[in-house]
Amino acid sequence: MTEATLLISSKNYSSWSLRGYLLAKLSGIDFAEERVSPDDPRAKEELLMRTSSILVPCLLHGDVTVWDTLAIAEYLNELFPEALMLPTDKVARARCRSISGEMHSGFAALRSSLPMNLRFRKPGFTVWSSAQADIDRITTIWTDCLTTWKGPFLFGRRPTIADAMYAPVVARFLSYDVAVGPVCQDYCDTIMKWGPMKEWVADSREEPQEIIELDLDF
Amino acid sequence: MTEATLLISSKNYSSWSLRGYLLAKLSGIDFAEERVSPDDPRAKEELLMRTSSILVPCLLHGDVTVWDTLAIAEYLNELFPEALMLPTDKVARARCRSISGEMHSGFAALRSSLPMNLRFRKPGFTVWSSAQADIDRITTIWTDCLTTWKGPFLFGRRPTIADAMYAPVVARFLSYDVAVGPVCQDYCDTIMKWGPMKEWVADSREEPQEIIELDLDF
Repeated sequence: MTEATLLISSKNYSSWSLRGYLLAKLSGIDFAEERVSPDDPRAKEELLMRTSSILVPCLLHGDVTVWDTLAIAEYLNELFPEALMLPTDKVARARCRSISGEMHSGFAALRSSLPMNLRFRKPGFTVWSSAQADIDRITTIWTDCLTTWKGPFLFGRRPTIADAMYAPVVARFLSYDVAVGPVCQDYCDTIMKWGPMKEWVADSREEPQEIIELDLDF
Repeated sequence: MTEATLLISSKNYSSWSLRGYLLAKLSGIDFAEERVSPDDPRAKEELLMRTSSILVPCLLHGDVTVWDTLAIAEYLNELFPEALMLPTDKVARARCRSISGEMHSGFAALRSSLPMNLRFRKPGFTVWSSAQADIDRITTIWTDCLTTWKGPFLFGRRPTIADAMYAPVVARFLSYDVAVGPVCQDYCDTIMKWGPMKEWVADSREEPQEIIELDLDF
């Protein structure tokens, strides 16, 4: 019997599920994953970003139900302060929350034109201009953090909530052949080698192809 | 000299600026408002939701810069725990964060088809079906909270972060003549009578009409 249950959907496609998983791993909470049915139409609607993400990720912990990725992050941070999910320095902590919030509510062009698909590789993919503006903003955010806090993670030697929030972007850059400068490339390598990320990616390979590939038009 | 500065844009149109203002008021921080130039093209892009909201609201506090509405909320909550911006009960606190996060990243149809415009009234406005689904979800959230925590605010007698997050929705319901049941109507009345909301709405009346009414097609 684990302490908590994390509801997720597809490991290959659901970037919000991945974020929830990385956050739970960061916190150190003892949790089991539970997969919502691939036949649940709500799961598909969320994946296609036609509705709010309330089904996944969702953390069940005793009598508490927390949905929404940032709410899960703040809930776990409060529960496990010793996990240092946020930087302790005031300026870094505010920055970590700011860029996590920006990821949470923004970058719609990137999300819709470069959906996460961990098994997918498209060399020479052409990025549309609105998604390119998102990419430019993200690499600016990363470069600022990595030069200020010296890497290898955004806020230094330990991963934080912000790394969990941006990890699916790293996977997108890999799938859609998005070239970034050396500082950002080192960061991408760090994320892809991060233990919980590697576990998730490995699991995604085992997932039946047909789960969600219904009408996503990659 | 105030303790902090809050950057905002139009009081009539910018729902994110309104949220930032209500959050700063909730915290009790001593702050001055600073209006970003209405000629700043970035302000318009943010207002039209074509870019992330990083320009407004933005809180400048000593050497700390926090942008993004939820980051500001959590920053202020940590700084002023006595302001009780979040419920203290664990279940209510998790719910407050969940629905605040849902507002932060969701409800795109509502936002784009019923943009906030405090001076605007459109009796008999026809709501599209995707926006109607958002409205239904919001009234479900409100009704759950108001019946569980007994009102008049979402989590009881005191306003919390969630009320700041949903306040612009109340203004939209008023502008676009969205009918809600009696429980939700009482809540709308509570929000429109809430001191900081009344101040903001009064200020919006003083704002020159031409500030942003450039190519928003209401």
